[in-house]
Amino acid sequence: MEFGFSPDDLQLQERMREFMQRFVLPANRDWLRLAERGAYPSAIVEPLKAQAREAGLWNLFLPGLRDDEPGTRLGNLQYAPLAEIMGRIPWAAEVFNCNAPDTGNMELLHLFATGAQRERWLLPLLRGEMRSCFAMTEPDAASSDATNIATTIRRVGDEYVINGRKWFTTGAKHPLCRFAIVMGVSDEGAEAARHERHSMVIVPLDTPGLTLVRDLPIMNHHSPEGHCELLFRDVRVPVANVLGEEGRGFALAQARLGPGRVHHCMRTIGQCELAIELMCERALERRAFGKALAEQANVQDWIAESRVEVDQARLLVLRAAWLMDAQGNKAAQVDVSAIKLVSARLQVRVLDRAMQVFGAMGLTADTPLAFLWTWGRAFRFVDGPDEVHLRTVARAELAKAKANRGATLAYYA
Amino acid sequence: MEFGFSPDDLQLQERMREFMQRFVLPANRDWLRLAERGAYPSAIVEPLKAQAREAGLWNLFLPGLRDDEPGTRLGNLQYAPLAEIMGRIPWAAEVFNCNAPDTGNMELLHLFATGAQRERWLLPLLRGEMRSCFAMTEPDAASSDATNIATTIRRVGDEYVINGRKWFTTGAKHPLCRFAIVMGVSDEGAEAARHERHSMVIVPLDTPGLTLVRDLPIMNHHSPEGHCELLFRDVRVPVANVLGEEGRGFALAQARLGPGRVHHCMRTIGQCELAIELMCERALERRAFGKALAEQANVQDWIAESRVEVDQARLLVLRAAWLMDAQGNKAAQVDVSAIKLVSARLQVRVLDRAMQVFGAMGLTADTPLAFLWTWGRAFRFVDGPDEVHLRTVARAELAKAKANRGATLAYYA
Amino acid sequence: MEFGFSPDDLQLQERMREFMQRFVLPANRDWLRLAERGAYPSAIVEPLKAQAREAGLWNLFLPGLRDDEPGTRLGNLQYAPLAEIMGRIPWAAEVFNCNAPDTGNMELLHLFATGAQRERWLLPLLRGEMRSCFAMTEPDAASSDATNIATTIRRVGDEYVINGRKWFTTGAKHPLCRFAIVMGVSDEGAEAARHERHSMVIVPLDTPGLTLVRDLPIMNHHSPEGHCELLFRDVRVPVANVLGEEGRGFALAQARLGPGRVHHCMRTIGQCELAIELMCERALERRAFGKALAEQANVQDWIAESRVEVDQARLLVLRAAWLMDAQGNKAAQVDVSAIKLVSARLQVRVLDRAMQVFGAMGLTADTPLAFLWTWGRAFRFVDGPDEVHLRTVARAELAKAKANRGATLAYYA
Amino acid sequence: MEFGFSPDDLQLQERMREFMQRFVLPANRDWLRLAERGAYPSAIVEPLKAQAREAGLWNLFLPGLRDDEPGTRLGNLQYAPLAEIMGRIPWAAEVFNCNAPDTGNMELLHLFATGAQRERWLLPLLRGEMRSCFAMTEPDAASSDATNIATTIRRVGDEYVINGRKWFTTGAKHPLCRFAIVMGVSDEGAEAARHERHSMVIVPLDTPGLTLVRDLPIMNHHSPEGHCELLFRDVRVPVANVLGEEGRGFALAQARLGPGRVHHCMRTIGQCELAIELMCERALERRAFGKALAEQANVQDWIAESRVEVDQARLLVLRAAWLMDAQGNKAAQVDVSAIKLVSARLQVRVLDRAMQVFGAMGLTADTPLAFLWTWGRAFRFVDGPDEVHLRTVARAELAKAKANRGATLAYYA
Repeated sequence: MEFGFSPDDLQLQERMREFMQRFVLPANRDWLRLAERGAYPSAIVEPLKAQAREAGLWNLFLPGLRDDEPGTRLGNLQYAPLAEIMGRIPWAAEVFNCNAPDTGNMELLHLFATGAQRERWLLPLLRGEMRSCFAMTEPDAASSDATNIATTIRRVGDEYVINGRKWFTTGAKHPLCRFAIVMGVSDEGAEAARHERHSMVIVPLDTPGLTLVRDLPIMNHHSPEGHCELLFRDVRVPVANVLGEEGRGFALAQARLGPGRVHHCMRTIGQCELAIELMCERALERRAFGKALAEQANVQDWIAESRVEVDQARLLVLRAAWLMDAQGNKAAQVDVSAIKLVSARLQVRVLDRAMQVFGAMGLTADTPLAFLWTWGRAFRFVDGPDEVHLRTVARAELAKAKANRGATLAYYA
Repeated sequence: MEFGFSPDDLQLQERMREFMQRFVLPANRDWLRLAERGAYPSAIVEPLKAQAREAGLWNLFLPGLRDDEPGTRLGNLQYAPLAEIMGRIPWAAEVFNCNAPDTGNMELLHLFATGAQRERWLLPLLRGEMRSCFAMTEPDAASSDATNIATTIRRVGDEYVINGRKWFTTGAKHPLCRFAIVMGVSDEGAEAARHERHSMVIVPLDTPGLTLVRDLPIMNHHSPEGHCELLFRDVRVPVANVLGEEGRGFALAQARLGPGRVHHCMRTIGQCELAIELMCERALERRAFGKALAEQANVQDWIAESRVEVDQARLLVLRAAWLMDAQGNKAAQVDVSAIKLVSARLQVRVLDRAMQVFGAMGLTADTPLAFLWTWGRAFRFVDGPDEVHLRTVARAELAKAKANRGATLAYYA
Repeated sequence: MEFGFSPDDLQLQERMREFMQRFVLPANRDWLRLAERGAYPSAIVEPLKAQAREAGLWNLFLPGLRDDEPGTRLGNLQYAPLAEIMGRIPWAAEVFNCNAPDTGNMELLHLFATGAQRERWLLPLLRGEMRSCFAMTEPDAASSDATNIATTIRRVGDEYVINGRKWFTTGAKHPLCRFAIVMGVSDEGAEAARHERHSMVIVPLDTPGLTLVRDLPIMNHHSPEGHCELLFRDVRVPVANVLGEEGRGFALAQARLGPGRVHHCMRTIGQCELAIELMCERALERRAFGKALAEQANVQDWIAESRVEVDQARLLVLRAAWLMDAQGNKAAQVDVSAIKLVSARLQVRVLDRAMQVFGAMGLTADTPLAFLWTWGRAFRFVDGPDEVHLRTVARAELAKAKANRGATLAYYA
Repeated sequence: MEFGFSPDDLQLQERMREFMQRFVLPANRDWLRLAERGAYPSAIVEPLKAQAREAGLWNLFLPGLRDDEPGTRLGNLQYAPLAEIMGRIPWAAEVFNCNAPDTGNMELLHLFATGAQRERWLLPLLRGEMRSCFAMTEPDAASSDATNIATTIRRVGDEYVINGRKWFTTGAKHPLCRFAIVMGVSDEGAEAARHERHSMVIVPLDTPGLTLVRDLPIMNHHSPEGHCELLFRDVRVPVANVLGEEGRGFALAQARLGPGRVHHCMRTIGQCELAIELMCERALERRAFGKALAEQANVQDWIAESRVEVDQARLLVLRAAWLMDAQGNKAAQVDVSAIKLVSARLQVRVLDRAMQVFGAMGLTADTPLAFLWTWGRAFRFVDGPDEVHLRTVARAELAKAKANRGATLAYYA
């Protein structure tokens, strides 16, 4: 057991930190101003992408990167601290081609794409020339139980015909977005097991019958890439567009989630660190009742609680990343539920404290706190609500207890 | 001691409920649509105001209403449940001329206005023909300690010259808003005691030197009436515009806060009740893991916790209202701190639970939950952050203990 | 609605306060010393009982007291604040013949006893000459669901034969304890509805086959009256000992619980008030980091949180008492679940904070805090664990929502 | 970074687990029965000590063990998981000569003892022939601020004369306890800095003037080794008994605390793991409302929350152990405050949940839960109350922010 990073890893982290500080952070205000006007700030992002790729900070998230694929092949544990650093600017991951949902889609394609799919969809994604989205969540299905998904993917001859409504499809409004990976029921009969009835298919966004209904605000915030509602009415794609095999939708969804959640969680950690820094600096300069907030015991408590919570969460996330590297994504499934649960709630708590130190200013767009707080709240639903993850963790624990057959109880009670 | 309302009070509540149901609720979508476009929905509100006034549901908040002033004279305890009912639609209070910050300003003017001030400012407010704002909070002063306020109100001859920057001045963008009550330092010398250096003056919004710098979003939300930043540069008003007397700013601020906080808290209670209703109805219809959310113990816990918290908070607020009626606003000062503290945090908790039951939909504008949750968070700053109120309540308790001179400790420890 | 007590009620409270201060409080140390030795401190309690009865502070808890029954007939709402005052000394209620479980048993007998039962059991209890216990909880049945109760009460000829094991039978070790009211299954067949299979019978403690197995410590604390485990092996009592009717056990249990919970909750409130006083007095005298704890913001927060929580809880309990007086115990059933839930958790929280202010001393028997904290924890199980009450409150809320048929959702979402 | 233990470490953990399972666990009931009678269960412990020493599981806690000192030299990170395993039985650490406060005293003596002190006090401790205690806490000094310590250690000729009162001196009642390390003020003048006025001296327990006043129960629990109150009246020891140098008391206290806290925290983690196992096994077998508790979402939540909290806390503690090994105890000072804070509160929370699953049984001595819960509460004071550690962590964070000179704020707000 060793809690320090290797010198190489530390150097990589330093390079990322420097890139962020020199190039990304100074561009932040402009990005935000453009985004506020509703346009995608491609003019800011595209040159930075080129720079990042040149600097060797590209596609850092994909441990299985092949030699003919652009980017730096890193393990999950090596990548995790880089995601933390990127996280300080919510839009920064795209600069390094490491942004959701494309990362998850690239992983999926990397694992399951046919040669043709690889050429047409994966390589452009890896080169940052194209973007994609992932259409899973539906208005009428509790996302806590994905077997409720109702969108149908019916095979008719050589085509799949897709009907249904998806929402919270992140990225569909991005100017480079070209296709969605769509999850739906391909086998409605009772023959297949409950988790073998769904499939994923690749659907180009310009396919007839596919409409972008609206962009959903999250706590009043419209992201420039969109969290969109998509309507599928008799949308037809060739059967060659199926990902993996028919009926393997859930297996793919599982495979997709592990690393992406680590990234997400580490970005959250980075945002919490940012909040702690801001909270401390503000507490040092702000006075009430005759002394700096930093000297008041309640404010000190908030700072300390945040510090110990963030440190614990980071260790948990890093351990999950290590486990994926050491034993594969499947072995880390429960751990990945745990980190998602822990991180999202952490973000809400830490950001809430930081806002409180800022006073009313913390409610405005004059700091990143209000956005990050509401985003933390949203994160409690992204990739499954807290309740799903609590359930997963509890059932794993109960399974161990079952295997133990009451041995502890027999001795101790 | 009696926990039931009188038949008259109950009937008044029923009339309010009916008015809301028949007239206000059906207008809600239109109001929201107009507001989203950035315009003030006067076309919706003005006819409703006329109707409410005709229905005898007008200026219900002012116990001291004189015979020549329009409206129904109610005690705080009678009015409180009406505010709860109004609270279910955030903009509804204006329909009954019971909205902040005008209510607080009307109270102030009612208590302290000269005859001329009454004619020019109070009566138009009471008739609903004019609106006003209250400029107290400043960017560079922790609102937890209002003695930090830095805006200056200097007397020069027959005029006050005002310089400073205010923000979170709610209502300044309202099309009918005509004046601000401005709080500032009128005596910068060390002569006066720390709480006797500030004054309030009435400043017409069209006075030269007064600029509306910007409207501040609160968690990305722009209210159509605005939470504005105002800049005062050598703004001159006649000395006759002082409210009460010079140096009495803090005394006035205290007088102003009591009833307004009861209103605010009761509206919060109403919004929490709405959230409980929505959460229950959604839990009954939404399924996960093979059964309705309503049958899952964790969701039941959220509902029950919300119910017992709301019931307790309402009783505390009603008791404070009763105390104001029975012994005056000053006697209820600590109680008013307590209810503000309790209600704002309650709203965040209850709304958070309701959002969780709604899933991702709860994050959008498709329900009122996301707005009410973020508004609850903002409410934790409005009229002073939690910390100020905790401090007030604690100091009152410690004062009792001091008076007790260790008698309990002597007996019990 | 009126939040003040009448002058008569206030005077009664003052008399109770004085009696406690003059007679009970000074006897506390002796009571504790005797109890620690394991004996029941009758030498302390009996004279105080005589005094209290003479002072007209006797059987204050029973609204239905008949003219030939000793004591002062008070409504629940009148009695509640007296219970709060008594609560400050955990053993004080017995002085006024107002202690559990005898109060509940007296209520039951008052409502359901036959003439003979009244003579033999109720009147001696009302006179304070005898004590009783209530045998309901069982080791092998989750107390969250009393239909699990397994003790059998089989009718054989003119007798009931009782078999089973009960525990947490409070009071069975009291020197005056003469009988238990025992709850068990009288109809094991499937004929009766699930809540109509149980009965209650009166069992004299000296009946053959009834053994007091052991006294259970609660967090290491042995109360002198005992929380006992009782074993029933073919215990026979005449059928005349049934309370009410066969099969009415649950109905009786429900009837029994209302007022007793109000008493319990008010005693808890009294103990929380005591804790706040102690915490404040200690905070004023104790110093750390150069100033009194009372001046540190975190300690102030604990005091303020405690104050607002206790005030809210008290109002909720008083409202439940009022509802019982106004509409009967049944109407208050959900409210009574709510107050039980709220009060028990409150006690744990408030006492925890007080202990923290006392430092290590708070862990010892040098103050009442450690006992009251652990007792608060136990209270979370007494009369049903939190989860039962959360469920009760939630189901009541959901029932309202069902009746509303989605009307709120239709309008607001 | 590497989250797995080496095969050697794993094997050592397995040996410890086996020893506990085969020898210690079966002796638990007898130990408890003897302890309940008030005697020290030496008859159980001494044979186990011999066995453990033979098995090479002896003095595992001391990284600096010399070749002539009995025991296995392990780093803190290697030892930590062994402490977790020992922790499952509260008295087990003594079997391996790894129990507080002797471990801390052995560390102190190891670092600072003169040759004579080593012979007389340290070697017998290392051989398990003698025990010791540590007299620091005082009744009249808030333990949150140890500079309040008032016991005086005055040099008079070749002797120190000690006067004062100490309490919570753990272990003073142990039959093998021979000496105390006493912390007191040796320089009352204002010359020395606030943290250079205290010294530690070795005081044999049979020194005239030293009285064991009483054993303090903690939540009614008397540990057989005692948490004692000691009175020092003109207690004289030779100046050779000073530890380190005069005026170095605080430096020594700091040096002493690091590893001991890791041990303590890891034992807590072990107890929390035990609680989770018990809670799960109980939840599987206990039924309410028609199904096992294990299937109810609220109980699942408690299990899951416990799992993720324990895992996070363990990682934090292990990282602190690693930091001590890598950079020395001083470098880990803030981390050690953090783990103490986190672990103590964790124990209260996890044990509370486990008790709730057990129902009323959880309150009794029929399971270890009640004791461990109250002990967790006490642990929140041992080695400093939460508030001290929160303050330490906050100040470290604020120091970083000060060094940053507002750089983050400048960029982000």
